Amino acid sequence: MPWTLLQVAKHNTSSSCWVIINKKVYDVTDFLPEHPGGSSIILKYAGKDATAAYEPIHPPDALEKNLSPEKHLGELDAAAAKELTRKAENREKTKDEIRVEMAQQQKPALNRVLNLQDMEDVARKVLSFRALGYYSSASDDEITHNQNILAFSRLFFSPRVLRPVSICDTSTTLLSTHTSLPIFISPAALARLGHPLGEANLTRGAHRTNIIQIVSSDASLSYEAIADARPDPNQVLWFQLYKNKDRVKAEARVREAVKLGYKAICLTVDAIVAGNRERDIRVPWMLDDMEKLDSAHEVEGDDAVRAPGDTKMEEMSINILGTAGALSNNNDRDMTWTKTIPWLRSITKLPIVIKGIQCVADAVLAAEAGVDGIIISNHGDYSLPSIEVLYRLRKERPDIFEKIEVYMDGGVRRGTDVIKAICLGAKAVGLGRPFLYAQSAYGEAGVVRLVRILEREIVSGMQMLGARSLNDLIPEMVVKVDWQSRSAKL
Amino acid sequence: MPWTLLQVAKHNTSSSCWVIINKKVYDVTDFLPEHPGGSSIILKYAGKDATAAYEPIHPPDALEKNLSPEKHLGELDAAAAKELTRKAENREKTKDEIRVEMAQQQKPALNRVLNLQDMEDVARKVLSFRALGYYSSASDDEITHNQNILAFSRLFFSPRVLRPVSICDTSTTLLSTHTSLPIFISPAALARLGHPLGEANLTRGAHRTNIIQIVSSDASLSYEAIADARPDPNQVLWFQLYKNKDRVKAEARVREAVKLGYKAICLTVDAIVAGNRERDIRVPWMLDDMEKLDSAHEVEGDDAVRAPGDTKMEEMSINILGTAGALSNNNDRDMTWTKTIPWLRSITKLPIVIKGIQCVADAVLAAEAGVDGIIISNHGDYSLPSIEVLYRLRKERPDIFEKIEVYMDGGVRRGTDVIKAICLGAKAVGLGRPFLYAQSAYGEAGVVRLVRILEREIVSGMQMLGARSLNDLIPEMVVKVDWQSRSAKL
Amino acid sequence: MPWTLLQVAKHNTSSSCWVIINKKVYDVTDFLPEHPGGSSIILKYAGKDATAAYEPIHPPDALEKNLSPEKHLGELDAAAAKELTRKAENREKTKDEIRVEMAQQQKPALNRVLNLQDMEDVARKVLSFRALGYYSSASDDEITHNQNILAFSRLFFSPRVLRPVSICDTSTTLLSTHTSLPIFISPAALARLGHPLGEANLTRGAHRTNIIQIVSSDASLSYEAIADARPDPNQVLWFQLYKNKDRVKAEARVREAVKLGYKAICLTVDAIVAGNRERDIRVPWMLDDMEKLDSAHEVEGDDAVRAPGDTKMEEMSINILGTAGALSNNNDRDMTWTKTIPWLRSITKLPIVIKGIQCVADAVLAAEAGVDGIIISNHGDYSLPSIEVLYRLRKERPDIFEKIEVYMDGGVRRGTDVIKAICLGAKAVGLGRPFLYAQSAYGEAGVVRLVRILEREIVSGMQMLGARSLNDLIPEMVVKVDWQSRSAKL
Amino acid sequence: MPWTLLQVAKHNTSSSCWVIINKKVYDVTDFLPEHPGGSSIILKYAGKDATAAYEPIHPPDALEKNLSPEKHLGELDAAAAKELTRKAENREKTKDEIRVEMAQQQKPALNRVLNLQDMEDVARKVLSFRALGYYSSASDDEITHNQNILAFSRLFFSPRVLRPVSICDTSTTLLSTHTSLPIFISPAALARLGHPLGEANLTRGAHRTNIIQIVSSDASLSYEAIADARPDPNQVLWFQLYKNKDRVKAEARVREAVKLGYKAICLTVDAIVAGNRERDIRVPWMLDDMEKLDSAHEVEGDDAVRAPGDTKMEEMSINILGTAGALSNNNDRDMTWTKTIPWLRSITKLPIVIKGIQCVADAVLAAEAGVDGIIISNHGDYSLPSIEVLYRLRKERPDIFEKIEVYMDGGVRRGTDVIKAICLGAKAVGLGRPFLYAQSAYGEAGVVRLVRILEREIVSGMQMLGARSLNDLIPEMVVKVDWQSRSAKL
Repeated sequence: MPWTLLQVAKHNTSSSCWVIINKKVYDVTDFLPEHPGGSSIILKYAGKDATAAYEPIHPPDALEKNLSPEKHLGELDAAAAKELTRKAENREKTKDEIRVEMAQQQKPALNRVLNLQDMEDVARKVLSFRALGYYSSASDDEITHNQNILAFSRLFFSPRVLRPVSICDTSTTLLSTHTSLPIFISPAALARLGHPLGEANLTRGAHRTNIIQIVSSDASLSYEAIADARPDPNQVLWFQLYKNKDRVKAEARVREAVKLGYKAICLTVDAIVAGNRERDIRVPWMLDDMEKLDSAHEVEGDDAVRAPGDTKMEEMSINILGTAGALSNNNDRDMTWTKTIPWLRSITKLPIVIKGIQCVADAVLAAEAGVDGIIISNHGDYSLPSIEVLYRLRKERPDIFEKIEVYMDGGVRRGTDVIKAICLGAKAVGLGRPFLYAQSAYGEAGVVRLVRILEREIVSGMQMLGARSLNDLIPEMVVKVDWQSRSAKL
Repeated sequence: MPWTLLQVAKHNTSSSCWVIINKKVYDVTDFLPEHPGGSSIILKYAGKDATAAYEPIHPPDALEKNLSPEKHLGELDAAAAKELTRKAENREKTKDEIRVEMAQQQKPALNRVLNLQDMEDVARKVLSFRALGYYSSASDDEITHNQNILAFSRLFFSPRVLRPVSICDTSTTLLSTHTSLPIFISPAALARLGHPLGEANLTRGAHRTNIIQIVSSDASLSYEAIADARPDPNQVLWFQLYKNKDRVKAEARVREAVKLGYKAICLTVDAIVAGNRERDIRVPWMLDDMEKLDSAHEVEGDDAVRAPGDTKMEEMSINILGTAGALSNNNDRDMTWTKTIPWLRSITKLPIVIKGIQCVADAVLAAEAGVDGIIISNHGDYSLPSIEVLYRLRKERPDIFEKIEVYMDGGVRRGTDVIKAICLGAKAVGLGRPFLYAQSAYGEAGVVRLVRILEREIVSGMQMLGARSLNDLIPEMVVKVDWQSRSAKL
Repeated sequence: MPWTLLQVAKHNTSSSCWVIINKKVYDVTDFLPEHPGGSSIILKYAGKDATAAYEPIHPPDALEKNLSPEKHLGELDAAAAKELTRKAENREKTKDEIRVEMAQQQKPALNRVLNLQDMEDVARKVLSFRALGYYSSASDDEITHNQNILAFSRLFFSPRVLRPVSICDTSTTLLSTHTSLPIFISPAALARLGHPLGEANLTRGAHRTNIIQIVSSDASLSYEAIADARPDPNQVLWFQLYKNKDRVKAEARVREAVKLGYKAICLTVDAIVAGNRERDIRVPWMLDDMEKLDSAHEVEGDDAVRAPGDTKMEEMSINILGTAGALSNNNDRDMTWTKTIPWLRSITKLPIVIKGIQCVADAVLAAEAGVDGIIISNHGDYSLPSIEVLYRLRKERPDIFEKIEVYMDGGVRRGTDVIKAICLGAKAVGLGRPFLYAQSAYGEAGVVRLVRILEREIVSGMQMLGARSLNDLIPEMVVKVDWQSRSAKL
Repeated sequence: MPWTLLQVAKHNTSSSCWVIINKKVYDVTDFLPEHPGGSSIILKYAGKDATAAYEPIHPPDALEKNLSPEKHLGELDAAAAKELTRKAENREKTKDEIRVEMAQQQKPALNRVLNLQDMEDVARKVLSFRALGYYSSASDDEITHNQNILAFSRLFFSPRVLRPVSICDTSTTLLSTHTSLPIFISPAALARLGHPLGEANLTRGAHRTNIIQIVSSDASLSYEAIADARPDPNQVLWFQLYKNKDRVKAEARVREAVKLGYKAICLTVDAIVAGNRERDIRVPWMLDDMEKLDSAHEVEGDDAVRAPGDTKMEEMSINILGTAGALSNNNDRDMTWTKTIPWLRSITKLPIVIKGIQCVADAVLAAEAGVDGIIISNHGDYSLPSIEVLYRLRKERPDIFEKIEVYMDGGVRRGTDVIKAICLGAKAVGLGRPFLYAQSAYGEAGVVRLVRILEREIVSGMQMLGARSLNDLIPEMVVKVDWQSRSAKL
């Protein structure tokens, strides 16, 4: 029963809400309250074609997984399909699209990208305004985001000389997996916002450079598609888990990952609520302003009409979700050491890594809970920078490094950053945003280039320290100083 | 006996000084030396209509309270009233008024105000130059004003993970009053400078969000009008007291507050002399320059004609009062622990809170003096930032927090700021300027929005720390760092 | 025997060097090697009229004191005098003179000068480029000059409340002299560069405000003229001594000061060599560039023609003296505690103050040497800031404050700066540059204004600290912090 | 057998690669893999005239030393020579050449260069873009390069007064050689990039000022030419050694230095791998862009075509060598204390100095290894600043200064910097870049001027500290402070 546009258009309210995606019609009425991004964003497209908004931020299997088959109402009729195609073809490009196209043409040859900052600079030019808003924003005033980077600049080296380093081995094993470098791809969501091939760029780049990729729960490709993107079925991927508050869904997600061959589960515990990424939130308004669209529909002073005593946080948070916020709405906010870890152990025999440790005390609890590794990492503003937490862990509880593998991410931008973390006891460090930028700017080649840059920096950095293997990197080589070598942006 | 303009105009000297306010004539000759703002500012309007200058910075009952009935000389005659009306209508708008009107039209929808800085940014655009000068200025080089804010950026968190936080309670009790959040409205003077409804905006906003407002002694509405603005007579207001050096007036003020139902007296002890708010002082000159008015009347080098040895500070301070300075001229500068607290106790049974504690030693004295609470707060430049004093109090005398309720204000701009203070033992924190900005920009809706923003930030901040109630916020969660995360403006 | 211009013009070499000053002819041939500013600067005017260059930087009695009577060759003849007058009248104004004249017309009314920075800002506009170069420059990279100021911003207050302060006494005694405020005028050279009345402005201003002026050895008025400028012969002046390396001259200078009624001798011990004030040195070049004069006479690469091994520092230093450097050439560089202090004691019974103490050890030596006071002060770059030295002296040797009067200067710009120094034990603090700026901008009235501003700031600062007299200002009120409240300019 | 251009042009591949230098033809096919700068840079000129690229960065004897005689194929024929001359003459100047010529004409007279920053400022204008890229760049983010300079600004003085300093002796002995000042010329490569006379400027300037020059292994003049440039055969030069990984070549280099009369061997141990000098690497691309040359030959995304797992670092490093990188390719990266020092001792009886010590532990090892001196120095990013290492060595192991002579270089820009190092126990400090800038800007005269400036600053700095000889400079005169006096550039 193919649909006309008129038929669909009638279902444009929360009582009956149909949308068109890729010329198929779906009844999402019942799904409205479940949508992680809130219902209002769907209602914007009620009765209309939502393809352009839907595609880059949903894995292709999202509808399948979340919508029961009877809600798949079928195809548009030929005229409607033709009309949509015509519209899409005739659609005038937005100013932002035009800007991006020009930037793509002018971007420098990849061999002129010398460091991760160069890569980010290119990405900032070729990314859509929306993607950049999501990729680059961080919580509140972005103090911790900046300090994650700056904290490395407060660690200096005491290099040793007259040690043989012509042969320099950067390889290591992470949870028994051999990897060429002590780095991994941290889980980062929505890679397709930056590049049509999305997470597959990361997967293939990781394969070519022999490093581990941790796939995000919020990937914009399906977990299966990512697993399938591996050139070699033995390539090791780890799975990052946002535990759904619905236990059934949570369990299903883990089982899917296990089935697809992921080799470890990284349970994220520090992002149970969305960070307040204001630059991300402002994106649609700024785009509107940019395109000078009619903004008469905006409600002025929504709070002015709220009844006294009415403190519904949900309502407000819907207003200010942004791309980032939409992702965390279904997270389980009541996880505990005694409940959640055993639950996970009960589902899978895979190694468990806890991602989001932010203080020494929790690192100790993790070791006691018997997990296999931790990733020191943070999301909220004013959390201590990751490398600072690592520094304190080394100083206060060096025994922990014997019990579990300790990783960190956040702020790594140079080979010397990696080396500092390894000196302090980390087995490896993760990079998230830099990989998103690299794949956005140059696809898979960008990912490989990024690893090669780090490899070169790590090798020469080790040689300058007098180290021929990661084991030679020891805490005594790192000196914490009390001066500022770089200034905060704010 | 209605007056003609000509009749009034003859009384234009300090020997006989009449002014017109709202078409009524007053003889203020005897009041000249008592005027907190000094006599010269009144003499500027001697024999003339002073309504425009008088209204926004005086509560409507100011004349009644300060001028004996026989000095109320009666109404203008009809011609005079008409003439003044005509003049007011025909008066050309100043450049600043035109700027403000345009800014009002262009201000963003309230739901686009995401944080307190956004709110301040809007206010800075819609406030008159004079109001902004008063609201935004601080003592001397504004070092402490800036450091009040920056000091928070030297406190980081050690967040805890895997703790249940889906339900998160931000409520508390302040001196037995339940409040939805650990924040209150700090006393801030002259709200009508920023918005015609002035302090009533704060009162109604406080009611809708269930927080406590501390009403300033220098409110631009009468204490009664503010009390009457409460939608619910059970809404709790506290009264901030600048103790007049005239004991009779001081006592009368307290008794009025008690009678009107205020629930606590906050005695301010740190602002007995006016801060040297230079930006405020410069306002009239800059307005003059802006309007390119004739400034030929200015006296050059006033000191040049002063006799040797003549060090009359009063004279000079009159020259440089500004809006802020005018308010503190009648303050009692000889208050003591042994005299003033017992005096206050003798007048009222209300709880007493000492506002303006700036060091550990005085916090201890306050506890010993048996007051109910203290507000760590400051006015003068180079006073230690409030949060720093709180930090030291926690470290040096944790017992004080058991004996009295400790609050603080100064520099709070984010939910994380609030959380830091609560972690260190504060029962609640006050915000002053942010509320003035909010009501100036959007009236009552702005006040509500501001609280909602803080609520959201506090809730998610607590969740990120692993805290489900204020009791879970403990000193160990706060780490003082020795680096700069933000730079000083100066 | 009146001279023609032609006759004078013939004596234009170092073998016979005549100059005209105020239409009188002098033979300065023998004096060339003695000139503190070096011979080359005189030779520039050999055979010519040197009045314009000579006047603002030499006291009127300089020729009398330094040139034997037979070298006073007499007057110019009438034609020559007329010719010089004509030239002077017809001389085109330089660009810098025109700029200064305009700035003088536009300078703000004195009552708009609210603080010392305002005063400096005015002075910087009305000062000639040359005077500004000399007044504002400091050694090398001006690090210590800046840090003298910035170091105060690392000291905060712990103000006390509920103390009676309505009456606040700022007076003190310095070496038995009563003074209205704990401030004095530090010796600062060449006041006439900034204002025609020069040091007399300071003297009269000091009288009107009842503070002590320390007269510089390098004053641009004679010591007698300054003494005569006192409205009251009982006004107390102190004399700052640069000890000449010629013992006879040194002794004569002291005896003159004693005879003229100066009440203390401040022996400067830290400026025996000229600071490297590069901005001062560059002044003539920059003026040349500004006026686009022909600079063809400049020798390129003077070092290029110097013989190997030739390390004559004198030659080079002549090249780079600047206004500041010229003043220190005759200073005794071999003073010692055991030789110089007894020598001074042997000449005069006046109290002796050592100016230029820069470390705790020398403060101790001064106390042991039995002098009456010390001024912590500095000239060279990277000397510890004065207030920092005072802080360390208080901490390490509090007993010294019982034995001698301790003063400081350097970087004082606010009343709070003064208060900090008093808290740490200083009896008074000196200000040098600020007084030069004040008298340059507004003459005597500027000096008075500056003191009044400080008085007001000191009084209100003390009241905010809960202090009613200088004795109430104690070390515990000052807290050293480890953050930057202001940023360095460099 | 003179060659035609056509004949040469045929040998334009790696199988047969001929180049023309100064109108002579060379077969460099076999040399390609040995070239320190990699083969690709030679292949750019295969079959062509390479003179312009070759000359400024190779010592004239480079071909002789590196190419066996049979590869010297002989001269070009007359027509070819004429053609090349014609081409060279007709060649249009590049934009950069034109800029440099103008800058040369406008540079200030040398006597206006007051300090080392002035000198650098001039050099930055007159240097070619390429030379500046090489001279001014440093590793990675140049943090350590900046901190080498800034670290001095965290050391202040405690000057002593009333000490006789009219006679002030700055001389010292370095490894028994008398020198006029405690400074030496640090080895710095490729002086001819900045000035046609190159290293000879330094040699002659060192002679005229009686200081020691350490000649770089990477000098752009032959070691012999530099030795011959000495006006006096007794002038002392030291030789800096990059030990070649080929032991025969390494030994030959040492023997040559000994034979030529160099008086000490400074073995560099911290620069065995090239620093990642990105500004240097970008030079050719930026020049291309500047000249708008056709850049169509660039390979886009070189990594994109690399096979998976292919991690050939060599290949990548060739791409990103820059001028600096090219120099370090043949360095021995397997030196050890137990192997390399004895080897060097076995070849020569000259004193041995280890250059590149970066921590206390290695200073101790050096003393134990019995070398004669060390130079605290660094190349890699985030190495602790040299003066900081010196400070720590003084604090932790003062005994080391008794056992060996300790020098440092890195960041010295003022006489006060030199004095600080001497206070902390250094016998002398080296300057590298400042001398390169000085000779680039003004040739030999610039070198002399630079020393004179430092001499004057050192003398007056010592006098201000109360020191009459270097022995009077003691650790107690240096105070480490915890504030920033200068800000980092980044």
